[in-house]
Parts: sequence; structure tokens; C-alpha cells
Amino acid sequence: MPLRLDSRDAGFAAAFSALVDARREADEDVSRDVTAILKRVRAEGDAALADYTQRFDRHDLEASGWSVTAAERRAALDGLSTELRDALELAAARIAAYHEKQRPQDSDGTDSAGVRLGARWSAVDAAGLYVPGGRAAYPSSLLMNVIPARVAGVERIAMVTPTPGGEMNPLVLAAAEIAGIGEVWRVGGAQAVAALAYGTEKIRPVDVIVGPGNAWVAEAKRQLYGVVGIDMVAGPSEIVVVADGRNDPDWTAADLLSQSEHDPTSQSILFTDDAAFADAVATAVERKLPKLTTRETATTSWNANGAIILVEDLVSAMPFVDRLAPEHLELAVDDPDALFALVRHAGSVFLGRMTPEAVGDYVAGPNHVLPTGRRARFSSGLSVLDFMKRTSFLALDQRAIDAIGPAAVALAKAEGLPAHAASVALRLK
Amino acid sequence: MPLRLDSRDAGFAAAFSALVDARREADEDVSRDVTAILKRVRAEGDAALADYTQRFDRHDLEASGWSVTAAERRAALDGLSTELRDALELAAARIAAYHEKQRPQDSDGTDSAGVRLGARWSAVDAAGLYVPGGRAAYPSSLLMNVIPARVAGVERIAMVTPTPGGEMNPLVLAAAEIAGIGEVWRVGGAQAVAALAYGTEKIRPVDVIVGPGNAWVAEAKRQLYGVVGIDMVAGPSEIVVVADGRNDPDWTAADLLSQSEHDPTSQSILFTDDAAFADAVATAVERKLPKLTTRETATTSWNANGAIILVEDLVSAMPFVDRLAPEHLELAVDDPDALFALVRHAGSVFLGRMTPEAVGDYVAGPNHVLPTGRRARFSSGLSVLDFMKRTSFLALDQRAIDAIGPAAVALAKAEGLPAHAASVALRLK
Repeated sequence: MPLRLDSRDAGFAAAFSALVDARREADEDVSRDVTAILKRVRAEGDAALADYTQRFDRHDLEASGWSVTAAERRAALDGLSTELRDALELAAARIAAYHEKQRPQDSDGTDSAGVRLGARWSAVDAAGLYVPGGRAAYPSSLLMNVIPARVAGVERIAMVTPTPGGEMNPLVLAAAEIAGIGEVWRVGGAQAVAALAYGTEKIRPVDVIVGPGNAWVAEAKRQLYGVVGIDMVAGPSEIVVVADGRNDPDWTAADLLSQSEHDPTSQSILFTDDAAFADAVATAVERKLPKLTTRETATTSWNANGAIILVEDLVSAMPFVDRLAPEHLELAVDDPDALFALVRHAGSVFLGRMTPEAVGDYVAGPNHVLPTGRRARFSSGLSVLDFMKRTSFLALDQRAIDAIGPAAVALAKAEGLPAHAASVALRLK
Repeated sequence: MPLRLDSRDAGFAAAFSALVDARREADEDVSRDVTAILKRVRAEGDAALADYTQRFDRHDLEASGWSVTAAERRAALDGLSTELRDALELAAARIAAYHEKQRPQDSDGTDSAGVRLGARWSAVDAAGLYVPGGRAAYPSSLLMNVIPARVAGVERIAMVTPTPGGEMNPLVLAAAEIAGIGEVWRVGGAQAVAALAYGTEKIRPVDVIVGPGNAWVAEAKRQLYGVVGIDMVAGPSEIVVVADGRNDPDWTAADLLSQSEHDPTSQSILFTDDAAFADAVATAVERKLPKLTTRETATTSWNANGAIILVEDLVSAMPFVDRLAPEHLELAVDDPDALFALVRHAGSVFLGRMTPEAVGDYVAGPNHVLPTGRRARFSSGLSVLDFMKRTSFLALDQRAIDAIGPAAVALAKAEGLPAHAASVALRLK
């Protein structure tokens, strides 16, 4: 059974705080293992990759091929049904259109002191994409991770993915081909992340590594943050649905379950001001659960992490939503903008009754790689900016340095840095 | 003696690669200590802070006061000379003006399918600022770290700083007052970073932590990345000067030394196409070094990490500059824009002969918190964006979901996620 809370109950504040603070992230102690793997790949390169791949993925890279050939990728694309190919291409086009608007503007101007000031954005040279093997290998995730890099203008994109026994998901391979990925390496795990960061004989290093993975992959990215850029520290997925009583309980139940079916650690929370609707949604969820092919995951997740919270009115729910800082937030009311104006922290918001979160997972355009675990308090979904960097610049002439230089000299002296002071003072008239 | 290289020499490629790959960052193994400190502060809060402060900073927080009072801060400001106060206020105003232009634009629009799409930016609720004690406590750094947060609209800024024996740099305190910092806590080290991230009884948690610190502070930030946002993984500072023979060797020497005097691990590199100028700069550096009050640091840094590299022409130097991806890059030529157009990776660029890097350290406006250690390949200087996050949003109506929903249903089914498919399919007409 999911948690049921009522904001008017005496114990609500404590119970809600416990919900906010509940840690759904596994405390797997993989840190030491990952450190050792990174160190070995850095020192031994391809030999370490081949050995780890044999050990963890049970295939011989020399026999199966280190990378997927262009012919294999082409074949995967040709094997797609027209319906799926059209769907992937619609998704790719819409994601690209949304992300095009994120391209930052350069600036360059001269101020009243005669100082020329500006900023210039440029893409990183190369990006690495981790794609998990097995259940969590989603073509939609591949598009969401790669398209922002392409829009940014990244010239080289290298994908790594474990292929246990040599096998690979053809749908993912087709998506890679649609996204125009030029390199697909059959390596996974922390060792693949290390190869992307440090480079090996075969795999050239990249500048930014993105993409989801298991605890080892996530820890490898965390440890390599600073050697390369990474997308984010990701945790279990979550949705908060804020809905009044005039929604169809079946729709709301489906929306909650679309999160629960992802992973046993996923979380789905409903806030409503209508007790009868709350009961109807709970009943609809119970009715739907056994019919899902994902019922095992969804049932575990819903019972362990689900919650239905009754509030006096939906406006009063918004501060609670902010404390959760959810990855996904649906506002299923007639005037969602009024509630949205009260939201400070959320990864992505789905406005109105006709905007289920799943449409955003696939084809709407905004990125579905979003901050989880309350990280929307300080971080944003994946964007074009994650694949770009900004170079600031400055140009002074005699008038400009005479205008602002003396203040720099005074501060440098006060900070005890005489060469700083001299480098400015020498140029003053 | 600094390294001397000539790009026409046979061994150049290998020698330059060694320079690029040289690790100047100390491999201090502080990771385990920091993990223990973070864990204890998280569990014990203020009691752990008091104990660590007694042990490392040798003062009793109950006796000296946990935080600096408003009266103490006001007194520090009143104690400033007019010259320094004017200089700090000019710096603050110019930094604010530059960073105002970084405020991102929200977007909101409806596309041809009838899908409303947008993004809304908002500031984090609270930012924490680490300010080192002792030699590296610079009022200019304080302004550079805090002003972007203020421009972003961050409501609460909490500063932590070690005050060994209870003492604090009055210039830093005055800068804190000018920057309008509301909380100044007398705690430092990894324990202060932990307090900002997790919160204690006295110190409320923040969302983003910025500011320079020693190896313990840097490791604490690295370990807490994901619990909070952090500015960056920082390493030793560096400058690359690209100069033709028509510069004054004294000016160039001062510019190189302004980096060398920061820290023994700092690096200063000159690229020039004029052998006589290279010699003249080397001579000027040797002549200036003994006169600096910072001579000990500057001499160590220049001899250990300095380099003078002779190239055939300055255009051919730019790919080498890109491999270094320097924090600071001076282009001391008549037409710096022509060279700047060839640069892909640099934190901040100083154009022309009258733009010494030190003017950017203090009063020009762009941020001096910049990526070091080749991280300009993938990261940017501190900006307003580091204190903001973006919420994407989406709204569909019947027409819009009928247009793009079927593709989402197809992809959800192909990915084996039936509740995703149902949540969209239920709404289709």
C-alpha cells in the first residue's frame, strides 16, 4: 500500500518530512571497486577493457569486434518498422527544434570606460554517451542525450554500451544511426566511462560524458567529474501529480504508474484536494497494476514509494511540492499556470489535463534527462549548454586602463600581490 | 630555470606533450579524512563543528562567537581607506554590470502542432560561499563569487571562513559587507562545507557551494557534488601569453610573474615568434623576481612550471594553446581578434597589449573564477547560471496530443513500458 497522508492531520508535518528525506538511492559501496577500475584502464588501456569485458560481459572483444560496424548500424535501421522509424524521426526532429532555442548568444560590446567586454560560446570537441545494456536501454534516452550535443555543434560523439554475450538492442542501434553517432563501442561499465575520460589506444578521449547507467557507471562519472564534464548525478526517477477532483481517475492512475513502472526505486506522488478522487485513483491503480507487463516493478515501487496526499486546497500543496523539488510535475487542473507561478523547484512541468508526462518522455521536445532526488533545487535538465563552454574576453586601450587600472593596482597591493600591481601600473600613463 | 622549447626542434612534439600532461595538482590523499568529516558533521551537526574548529583552528566557537556580528562587519568596512573602498565598490559595480548580461531569457511558445513549450529560469534559494583563511583570502575573490549569486537573485548567501585563533582578515570582511552577505560563520575546512551542504542546528543548508579552498575543501566539495551544486573542480592557476617581438619585455615579464606569484603550483607560459624577445623576457623575469615580496613563491613556480616556447609564427602557436586550454590567455599583438578567432579552448582571453590579465582579476567585470588544468575544454568561468536552474514546461490540448501522441504510444510500447503508453493512449480521441 502506498502512503496516505492528509495535510490537516496532526502528524502531517513529521510524516511529510520523512517522505522528503527518505533516501531511495541505494548505498551500494562501489566506490573502491570503481577507483580500481579507473586506475587500471588509465594505466593499461585496451588490455584492461578487453579483460573487464570478458569478465563482466562474457565476450571477447577481439572476436566480437570492438565496435559496431556501419553496416550493422545500417541494418538495424533498415530493420525498423515504418511506424517506429517515423516515431523516432518525429521525436528527433521535435527534440532538435526545442533544443535549438537553447543555443546561447555571444556578446561583445564596449562600455563607457572604453573597456571592450564579451563572451563567446563554443562546443566541446567530443562527447561520450553511455547507453546501458538490457532493460534500461531506451532509444528515447539515446536521442535525448545525443541531440543536444549535435545542436551544440559537437563534432565527435562516441557511444559506449555493454553487449552481454555480444548482443545489442537493435532499436537502440537504429536510434544511434538516426542520431548520426559515428562510433559505437561494445564496452560498458565503469571501464567504458574510464576509457572515454582517459582515452585508450583505440578510443580517443572525450570532453563530456553523459547518459544513464547502473551504480558503477554513476560512480565512475562522479569520480571522473573534473577530468571531464558530466551531465549530472542521477538518482531514481519521480513524478508528482497535482490534480483536482475533475480529472478522470484512470488517467491520473496511468500517469502515476508510468513512473512506478520504471524502477522499483521510482516514486509517484499524488496531491489532491478531493478525498473521493484520491480513493478513486487508488482503486484505479490497484485495478491496473496486475494487468501491466511491468507489474512486478510497478507494484514494488507504488507500494514502497508511492503516496497520496490530501490537502485543503491545491495552492497550499505547492510549498510541499517545492520541498520535494520533483523531476516531473503534472498540474492537472483547468488553470495550471496559476499553480505553476507558485512553483520554484521542478525539473519539468506538465500543464493541464491533456499533458501526461509520458508524452514528454518521447516526442514533445524538452529533454527527459532531468534532475532527480530533490536536485531540481539547484540543477536543470540536460541541455545544449552541457556541451558548450563560454570564453570571456576583454580588451583595454590606454584610456580604458587609465580609467580602471588604478583601482586594480590598489587592490593588488592590498592583497599582497606586487607582480599583479606592476603588470597594470607599468601600462598606466 | 623555466622550460625553453622551440617548435622547430626535433624533440618538440614529445616535450610539448609532456608539458600538457604534467600534473601540477597535488595527489594529497585527503579523500578518506574528508569522508569521515562529512559523515560526522552530518550526524552530529554543531557539536562536530565546534570540535573540529577547536582542533584545527584552535578557537572555541562558544567563546569567539559562531558568526561575525553585523557590528564587526560594519566596523571592518568603516576601517577601510577611501582608496580601497572606492576600488572595491568600482570592482563590485563593474562585476555586477558584466554579469547582468548573463541572466538567461525564459521562453514560452506554441508550435505548429499546437504544443506549448517553454523554459523558465529561477534562482536557487540559498548559496554558500567558502572563503579561505590566511594568504589566499582575497576580497576580490569574494566579490567574484558572490556578485553572480546576487545578480541571479539568490535570497540567502551564507559565508564560511576559518578564523585561526579567532582572527579574520578585515579587508575580506569589508568586501563581504559591500557584497551584502547576511551570514558569516567562523568555521572552515571540510567541516564547514559539510555544514553548508547538510545543515546543522545553527547553519541552514544551502543549494550551491562556491569558493576556493585547500585540498580538504576541494575534496569536500567534490564529494558533496550532487547533494548540492558546486562551482567547479579547481586546480592550480595558469596563464599563457602569446606575444610578438614588439611588446615591452618588462610588461610581458610582469604578466608572467603575476601568475607565478599566486602559488608554487601556478604556471606561466610564453609563446613568441621572436627569439630575441624571448631572451629579453627571460632576462626581465630574472631581474624582477628578487625584488618581489612574493619572490619565494614566484621563483619556485617560474622555475618549476614556467615555459618559454619559440614558434615559427603566432598562428601556428594557437593549436598548442588549445591543447593547454589555459585558464588565462593574453594575445599581445596588434590584431588580437585574428588570433582569438583561432582559439577553441580558453577560460578568459585578454586582447591586445594594453590588457594585462591582472586587470581582469580585479575590476574589469568578467569573472576571475575560471576553469584550470585544461578544464576550459569543457567548462566555463563562474556565472549567473551557476546560481540558477531551468524548469522546462509543456502543455498539450486535444489537437496537440492527437498529433504527437501516437508516436509516443508506439515508442513506449517498443520500450516495453505499457503504463507510459496507456497514459497517452487514454487521452487520444
